[in-house]
Amino acid sequence: MSDSISRRTFLQASGIAVGGTVFPATQAVAATAKAQAHADSAPPATKMLANYIVNSKWSEIPGSARKEAVRSVLNWVGCCLGGCRHETTENAITALAEFSGPAQATVLGRKERLDILHSALLNGITSHALDYDDTHLETIIHPAGPVASAILALGERQNTSGEDFMHAFILGVEAECRIGKAVYPSHYERGYHITGTAGVFGAAAAAGKLLGLSEQQMIWALGIAATQSAGLKVMFGTMCKPFHPGRAAQNGLTAALLAAKNFTSTNNALEAAEGFAFTMSDEQDFSQIADNLGETFEVSKNTYKPFACGIVTHPIIDGCIQLRNEYDLKPEQIESVSLRVNPLVLKLTGKKTPQTGLEAKFSIFHASAVAIIRGTAGPREYTDETVRNPEVIALRDRVTAQVDENVSEEEAFVSIRLRNGRVLNRHIENAIGSLENPMTNEALEHKFLDQAQGVMTEAQLNALIARCWEIESLDDVKLLTGAAIPV
Amino acid sequence: MSDSISRRTFLQASGIAVGGTVFPATQAVAATAKAQAHADSAPPATKMLANYIVNSKWSEIPGSARKEAVRSVLNWVGCCLGGCRHETTENAITALAEFSGPAQATVLGRKERLDILHSALLNGITSHALDYDDTHLETIIHPAGPVASAILALGERQNTSGEDFMHAFILGVEAECRIGKAVYPSHYERGYHITGTAGVFGAAAAAGKLLGLSEQQMIWALGIAATQSAGLKVMFGTMCKPFHPGRAAQNGLTAALLAAKNFTSTNNALEAAEGFAFTMSDEQDFSQIADNLGETFEVSKNTYKPFACGIVTHPIIDGCIQLRNEYDLKPEQIESVSLRVNPLVLKLTGKKTPQTGLEAKFSIFHASAVAIIRGTAGPREYTDETVRNPEVIALRDRVTAQVDENVSEEEAFVSIRLRNGRVLNRHIENAIGSLENPMTNEALEHKFLDQAQGVMTEAQLNALIARCWEIESLDDVKLLTGAAIPV
Repeated sequence: MSDSISRRTFLQASGIAVGGTVFPATQAVAATAKAQAHADSAPPATKMLANYIVNSKWSEIPGSARKEAVRSVLNWVGCCLGGCRHETTENAITALAEFSGPAQATVLGRKERLDILHSALLNGITSHALDYDDTHLETIIHPAGPVASAILALGERQNTSGEDFMHAFILGVEAECRIGKAVYPSHYERGYHITGTAGVFGAAAAAGKLLGLSEQQMIWALGIAATQSAGLKVMFGTMCKPFHPGRAAQNGLTAALLAAKNFTSTNNALEAAEGFAFTMSDEQDFSQIADNLGETFEVSKNTYKPFACGIVTHPIIDGCIQLRNEYDLKPEQIESVSLRVNPLVLKLTGKKTPQTGLEAKFSIFHASAVAIIRGTAGPREYTDETVRNPEVIALRDRVTAQVDENVSEEEAFVSIRLRNGRVLNRHIENAIGSLENPMTNEALEHKFLDQAQGVMTEAQLNALIARCWEIESLDDVKLLTGAAIPV
Repeated sequence: MSDSISRRTFLQASGIAVGGTVFPATQAVAATAKAQAHADSAPPATKMLANYIVNSKWSEIPGSARKEAVRSVLNWVGCCLGGCRHETTENAITALAEFSGPAQATVLGRKERLDILHSALLNGITSHALDYDDTHLETIIHPAGPVASAILALGERQNTSGEDFMHAFILGVEAECRIGKAVYPSHYERGYHITGTAGVFGAAAAAGKLLGLSEQQMIWALGIAATQSAGLKVMFGTMCKPFHPGRAAQNGLTAALLAAKNFTSTNNALEAAEGFAFTMSDEQDFSQIADNLGETFEVSKNTYKPFACGIVTHPIIDGCIQLRNEYDLKPEQIESVSLRVNPLVLKLTGKKTPQTGLEAKFSIFHASAVAIIRGTAGPREYTDETVRNPEVIALRDRVTAQVDENVSEEEAFVSIRLRNGRVLNRHIENAIGSLENPMTNEALEHKFLDQAQGVMTEAQLNALIARCWEIESLDDVKLLTGAAIPV
């Protein structure tokens, strides 16, 4: 045995394929050499980002970024309440609460108090459980979950002011979205769920800001985050998807806590040849991290979902609801529905016959059918019950979809053929909730109340909404978390 | 702004490069299509592995595997004691102990008792802190750390017998090493620290076995492990390296605990097109997971380091010690030392002027010098003090290394030129500690005592060693952990 093992080890370590169905080995070696050459010319992105975060002052954050950040936090709190009693949340708490440390922080919308690491995990999970949270469209990152979950827990423990919380939040979103932009779309195409893989940096940066890390410690925090960066797209449609922002929040917070105690990491985790960007992506653009720091703000480009499912389905849902309302459509009038969409839509949401509410989030066919029948697409349209509703199934089976590379992700074409032979067409260029067609503050409040229904009384929910709007002026974030615990 | 953003989003999502220094975008798209085609023909590796683990019986494990597993655990306990007071360990405990839950499990060699998740993290860290643990040579995985750390903590909580512990240990090592073999060397070449990325599967499999998971739950556990798989090679030489097996243990244990409460994941996390192997590696060989399950045992191929540094340096150290002892060499006699090694050696351990003990582990130059001066390479040869010793530095500066693709990883050539003109040569084919030249039980005990010196009295250490040898017959693993707490 020893001889064959030795030879195999040697051959493998030299990058030569041994048996089985492997690609040509030279590929990996060539890629590594290319990465090394490319890394040598990369800007010191890790250090530049850390330096910016450590030295950023609240007075330097423009009003437009602050305004959108508050809307982001309000939307995030609403989503946490929307997901706080979801089966995913219940299973996670059942499995892990017994290992929690001291009761340091809140799980929004629930009575349990957990240590800050478990609180970060849980709020990250609840905020994404309904797939109803915010989206940074350039990267498809859901920015608030990883960042806010980490620093609300930490902030609650150290009596952080609303202003400091919002400052850290904005910087965390900046870090995760810039790092995401540096590797998107190649990283995402490879199979990574970017909300998890980039989110961990946002959580580390924001928590590190609240902990007052030095520049060296912030560099380490980003490094400890990099080496925990994880999350696979194959998990879409399972409880692991919302687990990703939860784990990103918890791991990023852990990174910052470790760095604060001088747990060391490398100084170039983002741009080194065997660092984050070269290992976990086939393309890199470090200018996305290094350029215009402090001048542009990614949080200003955040958007919110009016529908409780993946953003790629929204143009179709918007189009279906418009036609339904305009022509007062009933399902029995409809012979068939034809959709024409960007290829990504079917790749992400091509499930023809979803069996559960979770699976339905990955079905453009369900999305279309339920939007026509109900005229909305909130969490109640994504329950197991709705998915098994015979009327929904019957219409869903009459929906077909066609991909078209000339159709952008933002747009979609809906064509409804009625039994009377009439054909109704709608071209949506930018769905409601997009950057071009944003939700109003009132619509955000409506969404909040709709999904949080039953978690607390409506009066309590309205009081919590008020706390969110005034968060910048709160002396202590506990004034917000205290209002998010049902009595 | 909105227009340019929209266009950019569309272009990026379509895989077309937009500005910056990016590789041709078609590469990623082509790779994805290839992955899909390849994944469609892959065996159901996740299900096959889960099925094997769930149904494996202790009586089916051959004596040879059992014997090597006990040696692995003994070596692991020794390494935990060796690293239990390391700065890496102290910093991690200082940062995280205050968030620990109930005092459920031991940190070997220390008085703290933590919840099982933190205990798993800490024992994983301590076991690798000195880079002195075991090695599965085909994959360069350090197998015991992630697996044993997870299940000793869990076993301590549920009064697991030594037999059940060893059974789970063997299966966990099987899972991590087979999954490692399915992606090695491409995965490693890409930049992943495989002990972290593959270790998490071993921890999940072993913990899942102890928890009595059903086949479906075991499939989920492997999936939840996959989506936490992380760890970058750029971290070598920092505290993040031992953090990897620690986090792998903690995350794998978390995966099993979640799966036990029906936290769902996908059914094909290993082999799906956007699953672990295709996302995190450029080459895949699923036969390494699927073939001969229950017939071969990876643990039988485990090896132990006689020297407290990376395995790739061992042939050089062995050769240097042999020449030193044979010719009674003193550093002042030596003009220069020339090494000829496999290219991987300089890639991993090419640091010319290490400044700390940690960095020295990644310096073949330090390794060679200290071996010649001291005639050994234990933890004391890798302290900051030794690295800064002028005599060590002076000889280190006279060491040069040359790579040779015709030299295998197992072998090395040492050539020492004396000031009197004489040249001494040594060719090491297989270093001490290799599969071909394994450490004896007595040598393992000696290594244990040497590194654990001072943690407990020698009598206590000998009692703990005895417990390790008899682990299969212990009624409760607490009999072992209880003997590993200093009084």
